[in-house]
Amino acid sequence: MNSKLTIYGDMRSGNCLKVKWVVDFLRLPYQWIETRAGTGATKDPAFLTLNPQGQVPVLVLGDGRVLAQSNAIVLHLAEATPLTPDDSYERARMWEAMFWEQYSHEPAIAVRRWRLHFLGMPETDLDPSLLDRGRLALELMEDKLATQAWIACNIFTCADIALLAYTRMANEGGFNLASYPHVSRWITRCESRLALGPYVSAPRQIPV
Amino acid sequence: MNSKLTIYGDMRSGNCLKVKWVVDFLRLPYQWIETRAGTGATKDPAFLTLNPQGQVPVLVLGDGRVLAQSNAIVLHLAEATPLTPDDSYERARMWEAMFWEQYSHEPAIAVRRWRLHFLGMPETDLDPSLLDRGRLALELMEDKLATQAWIACNIFTCADIALLAYTRMANEGGFNLASYPHVSRWITRCESRLALGPYVSAPRQIPV
Repeated sequence: MNSKLTIYGDMRSGNCLKVKWVVDFLRLPYQWIETRAGTGATKDPAFLTLNPQGQVPVLVLGDGRVLAQSNAIVLHLAEATPLTPDDSYERARMWEAMFWEQYSHEPAIAVRRWRLHFLGMPETDLDPSLLDRGRLALELMEDKLATQAWIACNIFTCADIALLAYTRMANEGGFNLASYPHVSRWITRCESRLALGPYVSAPRQIPV
Repeated sequence: MNSKLTIYGDMRSGNCLKVKWVVDFLRLPYQWIETRAGTGATKDPAFLTLNPQGQVPVLVLGDGRVLAQSNAIVLHLAEATPLTPDDSYERARMWEAMFWEQYSHEPAIAVRRWRLHFLGMPETDLDPSLLDRGRLALELMEDKLATQAWIACNIFTCADIALLAYTRMANEGGFNLASYPHVSRWITRCESRLALGPYVSAPRQIPV
């Protein structure tokens, strides 16, 4: 893991930022190749040989081996580091939260943000289930964070990083984070761990 | 892991069968509590204290600790067993395939199967993107399995178990497995490893 890493990512994407936060936190040397979703860059033949799914982020290890899927990359980079619990059950709880993030959180909150904030779609054209499912995800997080400091374990783990990504930007998806005070305080805790400032909304734009 | 496990699951659900296959393969002692999705059983207050998400499968360890999310359960039960590669990069490739399964495969193939086969919805009422996304997932598997025996690594891993679940039942979702010969042969290889017979279609029924 000491040789230089290459990360193909889109700085507007929470999935890509997860990877950036981990390498920055762990002070791993890397180069970032900005690769914008929605511009054709991820469907380019050269890129598809790296990831046939045509998605960012993609990690290329120093020896050329490739890895896709944000949460798999995060887990790999953070294995045997303080971001991964030593205890087997705690590790499983971290995985549980990360699979939940990709199944029940990201497909509602990140997708609504993309359509509303970047594609500029009017609210009335959006599938109403995105709002319902996103609110349900935030409510489940709010309930959990009422009694615990971190989302999956009693320490800050990869699961916090995975869930921070799109939760932090949820206002851009038309969710009101002020309605979730425990979630809001957890966001600040995570930002402090990662030495991030408060979130500044991404410029609204149609991808080009 | 030696004390008896309790699994709440629905035998018609691929996500639940993944867990059953792992405990059977590893010969772990367990009791199975059949808990049917779509009947209210997973929204019952007692069940919601186990899993606030209201979903099966749920694993309860011998000491009462609880774990949800099919792929997290599979990874936990199979940690440090032959179903998990020793090599760190190979493990990451296994995770990559399992996150892809939950994001890009299950939400198309399993959801279409549920609506078509169990809810009895007419094809014309189904979101056409389910068919497109499911076919794309099967095509990506077909390409991969043209040159490798197992889906993620050079050995049979948790990723094969995770992807077998709904791939094996894809015909019930209106996909034609005969169009994917490499996938079909891989299904047979997985069935052989797990000592399963060929898939017998689940009885069509509206959940009660």
